[in-house]
Amino acid sequence: MPAFSPVFSNQLHELFRWRRDVRHFRCDPVPEPVLEGLLATACLAPSVGLSEPWRFVRVDDADRRAAVREDFSQCNADALADRAGTDAQRYARLKLAGLDDAPHHVAVLSHPDPVQGRGLGRATMPQTTTWSTVMAIHTFWLAATAAGVGVGWVSIINPARIKAILDVDPALELVAYLCVGYPDGHAPTPELERRGWEQRAPERREWVRR
Amino acid sequence: MPAFSPVFSNQLHELFRWRRDVRHFRCDPVPEPVLEGLLATACLAPSVGLSEPWRFVRVDDADRRAAVREDFSQCNADALADRAGTDAQRYARLKLAGLDDAPHHVAVLSHPDPVQGRGLGRATMPQTTTWSTVMAIHTFWLAATAAGVGVGWVSIINPARIKAILDVDPALELVAYLCVGYPDGHAPTPELERRGWEQRAPERREWVRR
Repeated sequence: MPAFSPVFSNQLHELFRWRRDVRHFRCDPVPEPVLEGLLATACLAPSVGLSEPWRFVRVDDADRRAAVREDFSQCNADALADRAGTDAQRYARLKLAGLDDAPHHVAVLSHPDPVQGRGLGRATMPQTTTWSTVMAIHTFWLAATAAGVGVGWVSIINPARIKAILDVDPALELVAYLCVGYPDGHAPTPELERRGWEQRAPERREWVRR
Repeated sequence: MPAFSPVFSNQLHELFRWRRDVRHFRCDPVPEPVLEGLLATACLAPSVGLSEPWRFVRVDDADRRAAVREDFSQCNADALADRAGTDAQRYARLKLAGLDDAPHHVAVLSHPDPVQGRGLGRATMPQTTTWSTVMAIHTFWLAATAAGVGVGWVSIINPARIKAILDVDPALELVAYLCVGYPDGHAPTPELERRGWEQRAPERREWVRR
Protein backbone atom coordinates (compact mmCIF):
# COMPACT_ATOMS: atom_id res chain seq x y z
CA MET A 1 0.00 0.00 0.00
CA PRO A 2 1.28 3.52 -0.69
CA ALA A 3 2.09 5.33 2.55
CA PHE A 4 -0.39 8.15 2.88
CA SER A 5 1.45 11.05 4.49
CA PRO A 6 0.13 13.31 7.25
CA VAL A 7 0.16 16.06 4.61
CA PHE A 8 -2.23 13.99 2.50
CA SER A 9 -4.43 13.24 5.52
CA ASN A 10 -4.64 16.96 6.25
CA GLN A 11 -5.61 17.71 2.64
CA LEU A 12 -8.20 14.92 2.80
CA HIS A 13 -9.64 16.57 5.90
CA GLU A 14 -9.80 19.86 4.00
CA LEU A 15 -11.59 18.04 1.16
CA PHE A 16 -14.22 16.71 3.58
CA ARG A 17 -14.52 20.18 5.09
CA TRP A 18 -14.97 21.99 1.75
CA ARG A 19 -17.19 19.44 -0.02
CA ARG A 20 -20.52 21.18 -0.47
CA ASP A 21 -23.97 20.35 -1.77
CA VAL A 22 -23.74 22.80 -4.67
CA ARG A 23 -26.85 24.62 -5.88
CA HIS A 24 -25.18 27.43 -7.86
CA PHE A 25 -23.39 26.40 -11.02
CA ARG A 26 -21.59 28.04 -13.89
CA CYS A 27 -23.01 27.01 -17.26
CA ASP A 28 -19.75 25.90 -18.95
CA PRO A 29 -19.52 22.13 -19.25
CA VAL A 30 -17.03 19.86 -17.57
CA PRO A 31 -14.78 18.27 -20.24
CA GLU A 32 -16.03 14.79 -21.08
CA PRO A 33 -12.78 12.99 -20.13
CA VAL A 34 -12.93 14.60 -16.68
CA LEU A 35 -16.56 13.60 -16.14
CA GLU A 36 -15.93 10.09 -17.45
CA GLY A 37 -12.93 9.77 -15.12
CA LEU A 38 -15.03 10.84 -12.13
CA LEU A 39 -17.74 8.29 -12.92
CA ALA A 40 -15.09 5.58 -13.27
CA THR A 41 -13.60 6.60 -9.93
CA ALA A 42 -17.04 6.32 -8.31
CA CYS A 43 -16.95 2.61 -9.13
CA LEU A 44 -14.03 2.10 -6.73
CA ALA A 45 -16.51 2.47 -3.88
CA PRO A 46 -17.11 -0.39 -1.45
CA SER A 47 -20.01 -2.67 -2.29
CA VAL A 48 -21.54 -5.51 -0.34
CA GLY A 49 -20.24 -8.82 -1.69
CA LEU A 50 -18.55 -6.84 -4.48
CA SER A 51 -22.02 -6.50 -6.00
CA GLU A 52 -21.41 -3.08 -7.61
CA PRO A 53 -25.17 -2.37 -7.75
CA TRP A 54 -24.85 1.21 -9.03
CA ARG A 55 -26.26 2.21 -12.41
CA PHE A 56 -25.51 5.71 -13.78
CA VAL A 57 -27.78 7.52 -16.22
CA ARG A 58 -26.58 10.68 -17.93
CA VAL A 59 -29.58 12.87 -18.63
CA ASP A 60 -28.99 15.07 -21.68
CA ASP A 61 -32.36 15.35 -23.36
CA ALA A 62 -33.88 18.82 -22.90
CA ASP A 63 -37.45 17.54 -22.64
CA ARG A 64 -36.56 15.00 -19.97
CA ARG A 65 -34.63 17.65 -18.05
CA ALA A 66 -37.61 19.97 -18.21
CA ALA A 67 -39.85 17.20 -16.91
CA VAL A 68 -37.44 16.57 -14.00
CA ARG A 69 -37.42 20.28 -13.18
CA GLU A 70 -41.21 20.29 -13.25
CA ASP A 71 -41.32 17.32 -10.87
CA PHE A 72 -38.90 19.09 -8.51
CA SER A 73 -41.00 22.28 -8.63
CA GLN A 74 -44.13 20.35 -7.75
CA CYS A 75 -42.50 18.39 -4.91
CA ASN A 76 -40.90 21.55 -3.58
CA ALA A 77 -44.24 23.39 -3.67
CA ASP A 78 -45.82 20.48 -1.78
CA ALA A 79 -43.04 20.62 0.83
CA LEU A 80 -43.58 24.36 1.23
CA ALA A 81 -47.34 23.91 1.55
CA ASP A 82 -46.75 21.55 4.49
CA ARG A 83 -45.00 24.33 6.40
CA ALA A 84 -46.37 27.40 8.13
CA GLY A 85 -45.26 30.77 9.49
CA THR A 86 -41.57 31.57 9.70
CA ASP A 87 -40.72 27.97 8.83
CA ALA A 88 -42.48 28.40 5.47
CA GLN A 89 -40.90 31.83 4.91
CA ARG A 90 -37.44 30.47 5.56
CA TYR A 91 -38.05 27.41 3.40
CA ALA A 92 -39.27 29.58 0.52
CA ARG A 93 -36.05 31.60 0.58
CA LEU A 94 -33.79 28.57 0.14
CA LYS A 95 -32.40 27.62 -3.24
CA LEU A 96 -32.58 23.88 -3.12
CA ALA A 97 -31.43 22.75 -6.55
CA GLY A 98 -29.22 23.87 -9.40
CA LEU A 99 -31.28 22.10 -12.04
CA ASP A 100 -31.53 25.16 -14.29
CA ASP A 101 -27.85 26.01 -14.54
CA ALA A 102 -25.93 22.76 -14.03
CA PRO A 103 -24.52 21.66 -17.37
CA HIS A 104 -24.72 17.96 -16.47
CA HIS A 105 -27.45 15.86 -14.88
CA VAL A 106 -26.69 12.37 -13.61
CA ALA A 107 -29.33 10.06 -12.16
CA VAL A 108 -27.99 7.27 -9.96
CA LEU A 109 -30.00 4.10 -9.62
CA SER A 110 -29.37 0.90 -7.75
CA HIS A 111 -30.12 -2.69 -8.60
CA PRO A 112 -32.18 -3.96 -5.65
CA ASP A 113 -31.20 -7.63 -5.96
CA PRO A 114 -28.07 -8.01 -8.09
CA VAL A 115 -26.78 -11.39 -9.24
CA GLN A 116 -23.25 -9.98 -8.92
CA GLY A 117 -21.99 -10.53 -5.37
CA ARG A 118 -24.06 -13.69 -5.09
CA GLY A 119 -26.04 -12.44 -2.13
CA LEU A 120 -23.08 -12.28 0.21
CA GLY A 121 -23.61 -10.02 3.23
CA ARG A 122 -27.18 -9.16 2.28
CA ALA A 123 -29.27 -11.90 3.92
CA THR A 124 -30.04 -10.06 7.15
CA MET A 125 -29.39 -6.50 5.90
CA PRO A 126 -30.58 -6.24 2.28
CA GLN A 127 -30.37 -2.43 2.43
CA THR A 128 -26.57 -2.78 2.22
CA THR A 129 -27.03 -3.01 -1.54
CA THR A 130 -28.56 0.46 -1.79
CA TRP A 131 -26.00 1.71 0.71
CA SER A 132 -23.22 0.57 -1.62
CA THR A 133 -24.65 2.84 -4.30
CA VAL A 134 -24.76 5.69 -1.77
CA MET A 135 -21.01 5.21 -1.19
CA ALA A 136 -20.41 5.30 -4.96
CA ILE A 137 -22.22 8.65 -5.07
CA HIS A 138 -20.13 9.89 -2.16
CA THR A 139 -16.94 8.71 -3.89
CA PHE A 140 -17.98 10.60 -7.03
CA TRP A 141 -18.75 13.67 -4.93
CA LEU A 142 -15.33 13.68 -3.24
CA ALA A 143 -13.38 13.03 -6.44
CA ALA A 144 -15.36 15.80 -8.15
CA THR A 145 -14.69 18.25 -5.35
CA ALA A 146 -10.95 17.54 -5.58
CA ALA A 147 -11.16 18.20 -9.33
CA GLY A 148 -12.94 21.53 -8.74
CA VAL A 149 -16.26 20.11 -9.95
CA GLY A 150 -19.39 20.71 -7.89
CA VAL A 151 -22.14 18.20 -7.18
CA GLY A 152 -25.65 18.85 -5.87
CA TRP A 153 -27.85 15.98 -4.71
CA VAL A 154 -31.53 16.66 -5.43
CA SER A 155 -33.88 14.58 -3.27
CA ILE A 156 -37.02 16.74 -3.48
CA ILE A 157 -38.39 14.60 -6.29
CA ASN A 158 -40.83 11.75 -6.76
CA PRO A 159 -38.66 8.68 -7.49
CA ALA A 160 -41.35 6.78 -9.42
CA ARG A 161 -42.04 9.80 -11.61
CA ILE A 162 -38.34 10.40 -12.28
CA LYS A 163 -37.87 6.77 -13.31
CA ALA A 164 -40.80 7.10 -15.71
CA ILE A 165 -39.37 10.33 -17.16
CA LEU A 166 -36.02 8.61 -17.69
CA ASP A 167 -37.63 5.46 -19.06
CA VAL A 168 -35.52 3.13 -16.93
CA ASP A 169 -36.37 -0.29 -15.52
CA PRO A 170 -38.93 0.45 -12.77
CA ALA A 171 -37.37 -2.33 -10.68
CA LEU A 172 -34.26 -0.19 -10.21
CA GLU A 173 -34.23 2.07 -7.17
CA LEU A 174 -33.65 5.77 -7.74
CA VAL A 175 -31.06 6.87 -5.19
CA ALA A 176 -30.05 10.32 -6.37
CA TYR A 177 -30.50 12.91 -9.05
CA LEU A 178 -27.23 14.84 -9.29
CA CYS A 179 -26.52 18.26 -10.73
CA VAL A 180 -22.90 18.47 -11.85
CA GLY A 181 -20.78 21.40 -13.04
CA TYR A 182 -18.31 24.03 -11.93
CA PRO A 183 -19.56 25.73 -8.78
CA ASP A 184 -20.35 29.41 -8.81
CA GLY A 185 -18.51 30.25 -5.57
CA HIS A 186 -17.11 28.33 -2.63
CA ALA A 187 -17.79 28.39 1.09
CA PRO A 188 -16.39 26.46 4.03
CA THR A 189 -19.83 26.13 5.67
CA PRO A 190 -22.99 24.54 4.26
CA GLU A 191 -25.43 26.87 2.55
CA LEU A 192 -28.18 25.71 4.94
CA GLU A 193 -26.01 26.96 7.81
CA ARG A 194 -25.20 30.29 6.15
CA ARG A 195 -28.88 30.90 5.51
CA GLY A 196 -29.88 30.09 9.07
CA TRP A 197 -31.78 26.89 8.33
CA GLU A 198 -29.75 24.55 10.51
CA GLN A 199 -26.39 24.28 12.25
CA ARG A 200 -23.99 21.46 12.89
CA ALA A 201 -24.48 19.98 16.37
CA PRO A 202 -21.17 19.40 18.20
CA GLU A 203 -22.71 16.53 20.19
CA ARG A 204 -23.00 14.46 17.00
CA ARG A 205 -19.23 14.07 17.25
CA GLU A 206 -19.57 12.35 20.61
CA TRP A 207 -20.30 8.70 21.13
CA VAL A 208 -21.73 6.51 23.81
CA ARG A 209 -19.80 3.58 25.25
CA ARG A 210 -21.16 0.13 25.82
CA MET B 1 -11.44 26.90 -1.20
CA PRO B 2 -7.96 25.39 -1.15
CA ALA B 3 -6.84 24.40 -4.63
CA PHE B 4 -6.58 20.65 -4.67
CA SER B 5 -3.64 19.74 -6.91
CA PRO B 6 -3.55 16.97 -9.49
CA VAL B 7 -1.04 15.29 -7.19
CA PHE B 8 -3.65 15.26 -4.43
CA SER B 9 -6.32 13.97 -6.83
CA ASN B 10 -4.00 11.12 -7.82
CA GLN B 11 -3.36 10.24 -4.19
CA LEU B 12 -7.11 10.37 -3.52
CA HIS B 13 -7.61 7.92 -6.37
CA GLU B 14 -4.99 5.65 -4.78
CA LEU B 15 -6.86 5.94 -1.48
CA PHE B 16 -10.11 4.82 -3.15
CA ARG B 17 -8.21 2.02 -4.85
CA TRP B 18 -6.52 0.74 -1.68
CA ARG B 19 -9.41 1.11 0.75
CA ARG B 20 -10.36 -2.42 1.73
CA ASP B 21 -12.99 -4.12 3.83
CA VAL B 22 -10.51 -5.42 6.39
CA ARG B 23 -11.07 -8.80 8.05
CA HIS B 24 -7.53 -9.43 9.37
CA PHE B 25 -6.35 -7.14 12.15
CA ARG B 26 -3.36 -6.77 14.40
CA CYS B 27 -4.32 -6.75 18.06
CA ASP B 28 -2.55 -3.52 19.10
CA PRO B 29 -4.94 -0.67 19.70
CA VAL B 30 -5.22 2.54 17.74
CA PRO B 31 -4.25 5.48 19.98
CA GLU B 32 -7.35 7.14 21.39
CA PRO B 33 -6.61 10.61 19.93
CA VAL B 34 -6.33 9.04 16.47
CA LEU B 35 -9.60 7.15 16.80
CA GLU B 36 -11.35 10.20 18.26
CA GLY B 37 -10.07 12.30 15.38
CA LEU B 38 -11.38 9.81 12.83
CA LEU B 39 -14.84 9.79 14.42
CA ALA B 40 -14.87 13.59 14.44
CA THR B 41 -13.87 13.61 10.77
CA ALA B 42 -16.75 11.25 9.96
CA CYS B 43 -19.12 14.00 11.08
CA LEU B 44 -18.02 16.21 8.16
CA ALA B 45 -20.07 13.92 5.91
CA PRO B 46 -22.98 15.33 3.92
CA SER B 47 -26.38 14.96 5.57
CA VAL B 48 -29.83 15.71 4.24
CA GLY B 49 -31.00 19.09 5.57
CA LEU B 50 -27.84 19.14 7.75
CA SER B 51 -29.64 16.60 9.94
CA GLU B 52 -26.48 14.75 11.08
CA PRO B 53 -28.50 11.63 11.94
CA TRP B 54 -25.48 9.44 12.80
CA ARG B 55 -25.00 8.04 16.31
CA PHE B 56 -21.75 6.23 17.16
CA VAL B 57 -21.48 3.58 19.85
CA ARG B 58 -18.06 2.35 20.97
CA VAL B 59 -18.44 -1.26 22.09
CA ASP B 60 -15.83 -2.11 24.73
CA ASP B 61 -17.56 -4.53 27.06
CA ALA B 62 -16.25 -8.09 26.64
CA ASP B 63 -19.63 -9.72 27.27
CA ARG B 64 -21.37 -7.53 24.72
CA ARG B 65 -18.62 -8.20 22.18
CA ALA B 66 -18.97 -11.94 22.78
CA ALA B 67 -22.73 -11.67 22.23
CA VAL B 68 -22.17 -9.80 18.95
CA ARG B 69 -19.72 -12.47 17.81
CA GLU B 70 -22.27 -15.15 18.71
CA ASP B 71 -24.93 -13.34 16.68
CA PHE B 72 -22.56 -13.10 13.71
CA SER B 73 -21.73 -16.83 13.98
CA GLN B 74 -25.39 -17.72 13.98
CA CYS B 75 -26.28 -15.45 11.03
CA ASN B 76 -23.25 -16.69 9.12
CA ALA B 77 -24.20 -20.34 9.75
CA ASP B 78 -27.74 -19.54 8.52
CA ALA B 79 -26.32 -17.93 5.37
CA LEU B 80 -24.14 -20.99 4.76
CA ALA B 81 -27.08 -23.35 5.29
CA ASP B 82 -28.97 -21.51 2.53
CA ARG B 83 -26.24 -22.42 0.03
CA ALA B 84 -25.40 -25.73 -1.65
CA GLY B 85 -22.56 -27.43 -3.52
CA THR B 86 -19.54 -25.43 -4.58
CA ASP B 87 -21.31 -22.20 -3.58
CA ALA B 88 -21.47 -23.45 0.02
CA GLN B 89 -17.88 -24.71 -0.08
CA ARG B 90 -16.62 -21.38 -1.33
CA TYR B 91 -18.71 -19.46 1.19
CA ALA B 92 -17.39 -21.61 4.04
CA ARG B 93 -13.80 -20.75 3.12
CA LEU B 94 -14.32 -16.99 3.32
CA LYS B 95 -13.31 -15.04 6.40
CA LEU B 96 -16.09 -12.51 6.66
CA ALA B 97 -15.34 -10.61 9.86
CA GLY B 98 -12.44 -9.61 12.05
CA LEU B 99 -14.51 -9.55 15.23
CA ASP B 100 -12.04 -11.68 17.20
CA ASP B 101 -8.89 -9.67 16.57
CA ALA B 102 -9.98 -6.10 15.94
CA PRO B 103 -9.10 -4.01 19.00
CA HIS B 104 -12.02 -1.62 18.49
CA HIS B 105 -15.69 -2.20 17.72
CA VAL B 106 -17.91 0.68 16.64
CA ALA B 107 -21.63 0.33 16.00
CA VAL B 108 -23.14 3.04 13.84
CA LEU B 109 -26.82 3.83 14.22
CA SER B 110 -29.04 6.37 12.55
CA HIS B 111 -31.89 8.46 13.86
CA PRO B 112 -34.81 7.66 11.55
CA ASP B 113 -36.67 10.95 11.97
CA PRO B 114 -34.37 13.60 13.42
CA VAL B 115 -35.59 17.00 14.54
CA GLN B 116 -32.29 18.45 13.34
CA GLY B 117 -32.59 19.39 9.67
CA ARG B 118 -36.28 20.15 10.13
CA GLY B 119 -37.37 17.60 7.57
CA LEU B 120 -35.76 19.37 4.65
CA GLY B 121 -35.19 17.13 1.62
CA ARG B 122 -36.80 14.10 3.24
CA ALA B 123 -40.50 14.43 2.34
CA THR B 124 -40.42 12.28 -0.79
CA MET B 125 -37.21 10.35 -0.06
CA PRO B 126 -37.05 9.66 3.70
CA GLN B 127 -34.27 7.09 3.18
CA THR B 128 -31.89 10.02 2.59
CA THR B 129 -31.55 10.20 6.38
CA THR B 130 -30.09 6.71 6.63
CA TRP B 131 -28.01 7.39 3.54
CA SER B 132 -26.42 10.37 5.31
CA THR B 133 -25.22 8.00 8.02
CA VAL B 134 -23.85 5.68 5.33
CA MET B 135 -21.77 8.59 4.01
CA ALA B 136 -20.48 9.30 7.52
CA ILE B 137 -19.33 5.67 7.72
CA HIS B 138 -17.67 6.00 4.33
CA THR B 139 -15.96 9.23 5.44
CA PHE B 140 -14.66 7.45 8.54
CA TRP B 141 -13.46 4.54 6.39
CA LEU B 142 -11.52 6.79 4.01
CA ALA B 143 -9.96 8.91 6.75
CA ALA B 144 -9.00 5.72 8.60
CA THR B 145 -7.41 4.20 5.49
CA ALA B 146 -5.33 7.35 4.98
CA ALA B 147 -4.17 7.06 8.61
CA GLY B 148 -3.19 3.42 8.12
CA VAL B 149 -6.17 2.20 10.14
CA GLY B 150 -8.33 -0.61 8.76
CA VAL B 151 -12.11 -0.83 8.90
CA GLY B 152 -14.31 -3.87 8.31
CA TRP B 153 -18.07 -3.50 7.92
CA VAL B 154 -19.94 -6.48 9.35
CA SER B 155 -23.45 -6.87 7.93
CA ILE B 156 -24.02 -10.57 8.62
CA ILE B 157 -25.85 -9.79 11.84
CA ASN B 158 -29.41 -9.43 13.08
CA PRO B 159 -29.92 -5.67 13.59
CA ALA B 160 -32.67 -6.06 16.22
CA ARG B 161 -30.55 -8.46 18.23
CA ILE B 162 -27.47 -6.22 18.03
CA LYS B 163 -29.48 -3.24 19.26
CA ALA B 164 -30.73 -5.33 22.19
CA ILE B 165 -27.17 -6.47 23.00
CA LEU B 166 -25.99 -2.84 22.94
CA ASP B 167 -29.01 -1.62 24.91
CA VAL B 168 -29.67 1.32 22.61
CA ASP B 169 -32.94 3.01 21.72
CA PRO B 170 -34.76 0.44 19.54
CA ALA B 171 -36.10 3.31 17.41
CA LEU B 172 -32.59 3.94 16.11
CA GLU B 173 -31.65 2.07 12.94
CA LEU B 174 -28.53 -0.07 13.05
CA VAL B 175 -26.55 0.74 9.90
CA ALA B 176 -23.18 -0.88 10.51
CA TYR B 177 -21.08 -2.79 12.98
CA LEU B 178 -17.46 -1.84 12.33
CA CYS B 179 -14.25 -3.63 13.28
CA VAL B 180 -11.42 -1.13 13.57
CA GLY B 181 -7.66 -1.60 14.00
CA TYR B 182 -4.38 -1.83 12.15
CA PRO B 183 -4.73 -4.18 9.20
CA ASP B 184 -2.64 -7.34 9.07
CA GLY B 185 -1.54 -6.95 5.45
CA HIS B 186 -2.56 -4.86 2.46
CA ALA B 187 -3.78 -5.73 -1.02
CA PRO B 188 -4.83 -3.63 -4.00
CA THR B 189 -7.75 -5.97 -4.82
CA PRO B 190 -10.70 -6.93 -2.64
CA GLU B 191 -10.34 -10.15 -0.64
CA LEU B 192 -13.53 -11.46 -2.29
CA GLU B 193 -11.82 -11.08 -5.66
CA ARG B 194 -8.56 -12.70 -4.52
CA ARG B 195 -10.50 -15.67 -3.16
CA GLY B 196 -12.50 -16.12 -6.35
CA TRP B 197 -15.87 -15.12 -4.91
CA GLU B 198 -16.63 -12.25 -7.26
CA GLN B 199 -14.91 -9.86 -9.67
CA ARG B 200 -15.42 -6.25 -10.54
CA ALA B 201 -17.54 -5.85 -13.68
CA PRO B 202 -16.10 -3.27 -16.12
CA GLU B 203 -19.58 -2.52 -17.46
CA ARG B 204 -20.55 -0.98 -14.11
CA ARG B 205 -18.31 1.92 -15.12
CA GLU B 206 -20.47 2.61 -18.15
CA TRP B 207 -23.66 4.60 -18.19
CA VAL B 208 -26.74 4.92 -20.29
CA ARG B 209 -27.80 8.21 -21.83
CA ARG B 210 -31.27 9.63 -21.77
